[in-house]
Amino acid sequence: MQEFITLANMLADEAGNIVRKYYRSALDVETKNDDSPVTIADREVEKRLREIIESKRPEDGILGEEFGIKESQNGLVWVLDPIDGTKSFVIGRPTFGTLIALCEEDKPVLGIIDQPILKERWIGDGQKTRFNDQIVRTYLCQSLNTARCASTTPEMFRDTGPVYKNLPRGHTLAWGGDCYIYGLMASGFVDVIIEADMHPYDYLAHVPIIQGAGGHISDWSGKPLTLKSDGQVIAVGNVSLWPEAQALITNAE
Amino acid sequence: MQEFITLANMLADEAGNIVRKYYRSALDVETKNDDSPVTIADREVEKRLREIIESKRPEDGILGEEFGIKESQNGLVWVLDPIDGTKSFVIGRPTFGTLIALCEEDKPVLGIIDQPILKERWIGDGQKTRFNDQIVRTYLCQSLNTARCASTTPEMFRDTGPVYKNLPRGHTLAWGGDCYIYGLMASGFVDVIIEADMHPYDYLAHVPIIQGAGGHISDWSGKPLTLKSDGQVIAVGNVSLWPEAQALITNAE
Repeated sequence: MQEFITLANMLADEAGNIVRKYYRSALDVETKNDDSPVTIADREVEKRLREIIESKRPEDGILGEEFGIKESQNGLVWVLDPIDGTKSFVIGRPTFGTLIALCEEDKPVLGIIDQPILKERWIGDGQKTRFNDQIVRTYLCQSLNTARCASTTPEMFRDTGPVYKNLPRGHTLAWGGDCYIYGLMASGFVDVIIEADMHPYDYLAHVPIIQGAGGHISDWSGKPLTLKSDGQVIAVGNVSLWPEAQALITNAE
Repeated sequence: MQEFITLANMLADEAGNIVRKYYRSALDVETKNDDSPVTIADREVEKRLREIIESKRPEDGILGEEFGIKESQNGLVWVLDPIDGTKSFVIGRPTFGTLIALCEEDKPVLGIIDQPILKERWIGDGQKTRFNDQIVRTYLCQSLNTARCASTTPEMFRDTGPVYKNLPRGHTLAWGGDCYIYGLMASGFVDVIIEADMHPYDYLAHVPIIQGAGGHISDWSGKPLTLKSDGQVIAVGNVSLWPEAQALITNAE
């Protein structure tokens, strides 16, 4: 595992060097087929990370947001989101991140969330989750009524019927989340995240990070998140809140 | 005006000292009557700023989010939001800010947005807007189709009928805004902001900052924002986009 951790950290370092070059500069923004924005920074980061992986680990597979799939020859797949939260990136707000996950037979075993402007990095690898090399853990919130909830955008819930209006609001429902709220959950500042319409490169890195910090993360039915999940996510800092959070979704009408 | 600028900067400095003490610490969060969260940090900041204003400018009025109104004896009113974006503050996300505005006969003549964790401060005072002492200006985006749009939360549009679904989305509609997106507009990274359900302490500081950076900000009907406005705001980096942005709201159905 140490080899993978070293490589993942190096990938995150390289991504940060590129992202910092473009942050708060005049950027051309394009709109992709799914209506999400993309910039030269997204593409340059992913291209560079793929080059490094291909040179160091030629048999590993790669799944990236911008350039698709390279098949794995050994069961290992690197899953890359060069800039998760491109909307925040293009408005100059430092709450986006680079996501790097390593999957073994579809299951995430290593994850990094890196915020290169604030120099904040969460890493989960089956051991205790670290934030900038310090061990962190989730907060054990006791009730959804006092939970600090977060999510990225109401548009995620477009196709999920009544779920949006049933989302837990607790003391707070903060929008504009992206990967950063999963890092904040690992550090004890967010208690509940419910999201939908995500891709593997949006959620896989979070799995080892949340689990290694003591939290629980799964799809809406409770199944573990893998490369093949449907993109619906519930994460809780305190696993004892999970059934109640799930009931809100299941019982939404 | 220099006396007021000096005092406003000092208020922002004091607020930052208090906020940094509580940021990412274990905080009790309460829910206010309007469902918004509040913490000891909000109250301690406002109390301290009021003390300073009362000692240095005893005849000036004060309107604060947490402790209400002190009547003005001279036509000047300081308008304070100790932590705008308490939701971001309680989840440990550095995109909240302290807002300080000075009004003369209900009209904002000085505004500060201060982000104390990132040490970012925007100031507008009738001259050119400064960001950390550097003059900034808005970007002259040419079309709503390519605009970078931002807003705080869909809940703002609860009582505005079909406006929510008509909001311009351009290349980006980023949620989770609060004051920070107005600062980013002044710096050229956000092009359109449409909001509703705001209080004077939420919007007054932004007026001199957006105007001094070359942008335009008003209520939805086009009237200047004052202490007595209805809490609906349109801000654009390029004034030539204003009629089209307003039409989206007016024609929403």
